[in-house]
Amino acid sequence: MRPSNRTPAQSRPVTITRQFTAHAEGSVLVEFGDTKVLCTASFEEGVPRFLKGQGQGWVTAEYGMLPRSTHSRMQREAARGKQSGRTQEIQRLIGRSLRAAVDMKLLGENTIVIDCDVIQADGGTRTAAITGACVALVDALNWARGKGILKTNPLKFLIAAVSVGIYKGEPICDLEYVEDSAAETDMNVVMTETGKIIEIQGTAEGEPFSHEELMSLLELAKHGIREIVDTQKAALS
Amino acid sequence: MRPSNRTPAQSRPVTITRQFTAHAEGSVLVEFGDTKVLCTASFEEGVPRFLKGQGQGWVTAEYGMLPRSTHSRMQREAARGKQSGRTQEIQRLIGRSLRAAVDMKLLGENTIVIDCDVIQADGGTRTAAITGACVALVDALNWARGKGILKTNPLKFLIAAVSVGIYKGEPICDLEYVEDSAAETDMNVVMTETGKIIEIQGTAEGEPFSHEELMSLLELAKHGIREIVDTQKAALS
Amino acid sequence: MRPSNRTPAQSRPVTITRQFTAHAEGSVLVEFGDTKVLCTASFEEGVPRFLKGQGQGWVTAEYGMLPRSTHSRMQREAARGKQSGRTQEIQRLIGRSLRAAVDMKLLGENTIVIDCDVIQADGGTRTAAITGACVALVDALNWARGKGILKTNPLKFLIAAVSVGIYKGEPICDLEYVEDSAAETDMNVVMTETGKIIEIQGTAEGEPFSHEELMSLLELAKHGIREIVDTQKAALS
Amino acid sequence: MRPSNRTPAQSRPVTITRQFTAHAEGSVLVEFGDTKVLCTASFEEGVPRFLKGQGQGWVTAEYGMLPRSTHSRMQREAARGKQSGRTQEIQRLIGRSLRAAVDMKLLGENTIVIDCDVIQADGGTRTAAITGACVALVDALNWARGKGILKTNPLKFLIAAVSVGIYKGEPICDLEYVEDSAAETDMNVVMTETGKIIEIQGTAEGEPFSHEELMSLLELAKHGIREIVDTQKAALS
Amino acid sequence: MRPSNRTPAQSRPVTITRQFTAHAEGSVLVEFGDTKVLCTASFEEGVPRFLKGQGQGWVTAEYGMLPRSTHSRMQREAARGKQSGRTQEIQRLIGRSLRAAVDMKLLGENTIVIDCDVIQADGGTRTAAITGACVALVDALNWARGKGILKTNPLKFLIAAVSVGIYKGEPICDLEYVEDSAAETDMNVVMTETGKIIEIQGTAEGEPFSHEELMSLLELAKHGIREIVDTQKAALS
Amino acid sequence: MRPSNRTPAQSRPVTITRQFTAHAEGSVLVEFGDTKVLCTASFEEGVPRFLKGQGQGWVTAEYGMLPRSTHSRMQREAARGKQSGRTQEIQRLIGRSLRAAVDMKLLGENTIVIDCDVIQADGGTRTAAITGACVALVDALNWARGKGILKTNPLKFLIAAVSVGIYKGEPICDLEYVEDSAAETDMNVVMTETGKIIEIQGTAEGEPFSHEELMSLLELAKHGIREIVDTQKAALS
Repeated sequence: MRPSNRTPAQSRPVTITRQFTAHAEGSVLVEFGDTKVLCTASFEEGVPRFLKGQGQGWVTAEYGMLPRSTHSRMQREAARGKQSGRTQEIQRLIGRSLRAAVDMKLLGENTIVIDCDVIQADGGTRTAAITGACVALVDALNWARGKGILKTNPLKFLIAAVSVGIYKGEPICDLEYVEDSAAETDMNVVMTETGKIIEIQGTAEGEPFSHEELMSLLELAKHGIREIVDTQKAALS
Repeated sequence: MRPSNRTPAQSRPVTITRQFTAHAEGSVLVEFGDTKVLCTASFEEGVPRFLKGQGQGWVTAEYGMLPRSTHSRMQREAARGKQSGRTQEIQRLIGRSLRAAVDMKLLGENTIVIDCDVIQADGGTRTAAITGACVALVDALNWARGKGILKTNPLKFLIAAVSVGIYKGEPICDLEYVEDSAAETDMNVVMTETGKIIEIQGTAEGEPFSHEELMSLLELAKHGIREIVDTQKAALS
Repeated sequence: MRPSNRTPAQSRPVTITRQFTAHAEGSVLVEFGDTKVLCTASFEEGVPRFLKGQGQGWVTAEYGMLPRSTHSRMQREAARGKQSGRTQEIQRLIGRSLRAAVDMKLLGENTIVIDCDVIQADGGTRTAAITGACVALVDALNWARGKGILKTNPLKFLIAAVSVGIYKGEPICDLEYVEDSAAETDMNVVMTETGKIIEIQGTAEGEPFSHEELMSLLELAKHGIREIVDTQKAALS
Repeated sequence: MRPSNRTPAQSRPVTITRQFTAHAEGSVLVEFGDTKVLCTASFEEGVPRFLKGQGQGWVTAEYGMLPRSTHSRMQREAARGKQSGRTQEIQRLIGRSLRAAVDMKLLGENTIVIDCDVIQADGGTRTAAITGACVALVDALNWARGKGILKTNPLKFLIAAVSVGIYKGEPICDLEYVEDSAAETDMNVVMTETGKIIEIQGTAEGEPFSHEELMSLLELAKHGIREIVDTQKAALS
Repeated sequence: MRPSNRTPAQSRPVTITRQFTAHAEGSVLVEFGDTKVLCTASFEEGVPRFLKGQGQGWVTAEYGMLPRSTHSRMQREAARGKQSGRTQEIQRLIGRSLRAAVDMKLLGENTIVIDCDVIQADGGTRTAAITGACVALVDALNWARGKGILKTNPLKFLIAAVSVGIYKGEPICDLEYVEDSAAETDMNVVMTETGKIIEIQGTAEGEPFSHEELMSLLELAKHGIREIVDTQKAALS
Repeated sequence: MRPSNRTPAQSRPVTITRQFTAHAEGSVLVEFGDTKVLCTASFEEGVPRFLKGQGQGWVTAEYGMLPRSTHSRMQREAARGKQSGRTQEIQRLIGRSLRAAVDMKLLGENTIVIDCDVIQADGGTRTAAITGACVALVDALNWARGKGILKTNPLKFLIAAVSVGIYKGEPICDLEYVEDSAAETDMNVVMTETGKIIEIQGTAEGEPFSHEELMSLLELAKHGIREIVDTQKAALS
């Protein structure tokens, strides 16, 4: 039995609020249960130096947690003077995933900067971030089309993400914090709206896992992501 | 005429939402018009090293802006590896102001860490932050009293803050961004609920200002803060 | 009674030594009693990137304390790898104040970099720094006029600064260290030679202060600055 | 056809040289073809602060590339003043993988620090590093048993790693640099000597990949790792 | 002919002003011609961690240049966030040299921190710094003896330093800036008051130098240092 | 008697292995007994900004120690976020020494970056590094001549280095770690192949040394370097 009485395959309620803040071209508050992440997409002209003159765009992402988004206060990374390895790992994952969803040639020499800031954390912040950032990205691309900056839509497909894991011996979907911190295996999966894999990162926190367990986790992820994509589509329509 | 059609003495609508996030002992979303700041107060046992064994507490504050809280995206300070001078100046002001409101002996060897994170910026983020942080502080102190950690309430008085300035030659209260960036003089005032001064910081951005102008600005600030304190009290009751 | 037997309104002796070092275009040792600050003004062609091509100049300032300018040795900021919040706050104040004294259009696309380094500290280092830096600035501007780089004098007026505060319940002028560390209220005021206000920063270190106390402090500051400006003028003539 | 004429399932020759340097308790040079990584395991008494007094040990890892281990020279991270996101991601992976192989209770309050330094890079440095580090870890544990510091062997199983990917549309094993930089999908797999999964990290660099492709990649990885474990065992016997 | 009309063996006038600032236990302004360095010696109880409990003391040094001590302004190291390699090299040299002059057992578990800050630079700042720092060190040791903290004088001997070099083919003593920047060979020598060698650092900036040239340089250094030691002794008497 | 039974004048066996790694234009493993340093020379087009357009080249060097090259593990400088003073001192020495060996005009606007990474340390890492780096430099210059990038050989002469010191009262050559850490005086000497001096750095770790002792040390160094140059020449032929 899960702490929240969910069935193993059941994700938390996912809420997507667009235009959550005023300035960004895309601004989304995404909630996976009690996990709340503000995702903004900033459309900027120009590309990083290593891409200049190649006629293609770039998508990059940064991630942060507000110091008291967590149970006990975390040190502010800006005060500490550097981002943790975990932060860098997550923002690299978000950026990589979103780049897979965009046709860089159609984006032209423009950059979209994604910022994912965790307002409240209860497990699954990186998968919520990817899910919300994709919607913010869509809004920013539409903004650019509305302005006439882009002629064609560079979006190849929607992407969404969910965490799965083995908790008390059983594969479950969309782990909340108490599950996550006790899980033997933890896996984050990013898929396209048609169920193809963008990224899969599975870790044996406790015991190594078998091929069969991996298969069960993948099945749960596929199902969970399908539902989350439906929520994205509803929010965007 | 002000861009928002306000009268010179008129503050923007101030909204204070308590328990905005789940984990912090005090968590307040404060809004001064379109300026939105999340203020959390974390109650922690123990004090910094320089205070150990002196039987008194400490209040400190940190401030940050989400990268896309502003019109164009600002660099993330955590990624840049250091906090700007402006950030440090503001968080020092917030901490100093709140320390004035707390009896450190009654707080005992405990620390309250204030985090003010700007979700959306439209001028006056530091005065909004002080105003919201004071309410979060009250909540954190009440939490500690509820837990039996504190016997007596260490709060000496409520404090609130507002910006005033000279815009197109006329003294006005609670400047929004377009006013702030064009103001000749900009002043931030922090006062107690009874109108005594905690902090006054006035700067001639353009022309030096006269004693008379200073008097007008102080008058506006006093009036504006009185109203803001009323909003704090309503939110706390 | 003040530790130094001064009357409440009495500033310490102010000494201004020009051409204290050889290389800088302006180089001033300013002494407020036992507080000694070396202020240099470096005239550099060009402006920071954000001002390029706008036909105007820039004035900026940096501040530091020699490690043993204080009673007990302070850590060297260069060794520690960053400037403290206090340092940044002070150098921002110095830069802002001096910019108010210069017509940036007349300065053309040139930059004046002010360096204020505290050789010996006994309270009031920032007000001494502003006072001395203004004289170094004048010397640097005159140097540039002598070289034919500037046609007209961009100086709008002299500025000077003094600290005032409430010490043992009484308003006093130009606090030395033992007064400063025991003061209930501490205020730094920067004014033009004609008594207009450039900057006012007042802080209740202990008890909040009243409007009347603020008025007394302002009066003291105005009087103190008037005398200090006389010393500047004497040094420059 | 692969650039090196290998069959899709064929790994490069793996060489493991123990006692490559003199000082470390475990010191291994591991070669996957032209990729050469020096892996040392340092046995240190004590544990990091967050583990003190819990009667268990810790394993951690750091990773670096010599500046000219690559085709064109990379900036030295020590000179640049920070480790890249990629470096942190890799060293976190190495540490996490090796921790899965050690019974922390049996290790007692001791720490093993793994250092993986790439001498020459030709793709697959992280999988080579994990493979070599495991052998160095075994040597360090045996050293501690020889010294009587450890009574029982804390090693749970050997682990090894290999990269797999889709190159020119075909799944292949153990990608060298030219394959890696052109691969559509890249996956790193860490397994135990009995084929259970420790870590799986798959990324669609180009096109998203299907479930079937994932299955093929896993099959290749399982086979490749089995051979690499044989080489580890031979080196250790 | 030297730019200053000095003979090859002639040092610049050396001036040593003790008690130049008020707070430090030893405070010396040393001048080698136009090179002016403020050297303070701070006497602190306790030793760095690596020496604790060994019954011996420590002497360490830090060095800095005021930004406008030089012809054109140098970036402030505190603002830049790190000390240059040159700075570190020099402060290591100063510390090492002074440690050679002190009996660490007699110093007991106390630390003397030397700060050498260049007020005005005209070549030879490191040798001036060592020379002045030695006098400041003597004053700090005498202060501690006066306070009864030290029973015996830990000073083994005075030390002093001078630069020598080959300029336009001829060995000269105590190079000023224009000589230094054109010298083929540059050597800094630190000696005891009896002419024994503490440190010798010679560098061929242009052409390699011969054994005979080294001998000439050493001879000049020995002679120059003898005179400088006389100035130290006069200042101390 | 030396720990290794060497005579006072006897260097350790010196081994020079060229083409130790594949990518660098020059790649040398140099061994002085148990001290092993990997030296690479990277030939890069262009020069640092301060040299642009002057028609001359540049040689620079970086130095590092693998964390477990030493008896007990050293902290990784990249993780620590900065290079130590010792590291900077050594890499400045290496760069300066090699620049003396190259005609910068003949090098044209090209840069050679030397990387010296200590694989295993047993004293004398900086002198081994200079010796090995010189051979790597020669290889890189020959590579550039082979490619037709350089018409003439910019090498002026070979350089090599050795450490000498006073150990148990007696001058000895090429100190290994146990000798080095007990030496009263430690001196590093860099010479050309014809015995002219490039750099001499002598330090009294314990007692100051006399002119006569300096002479003995220089004699040992000259003899030791002569032999090491022979080994360089043999390796290069």
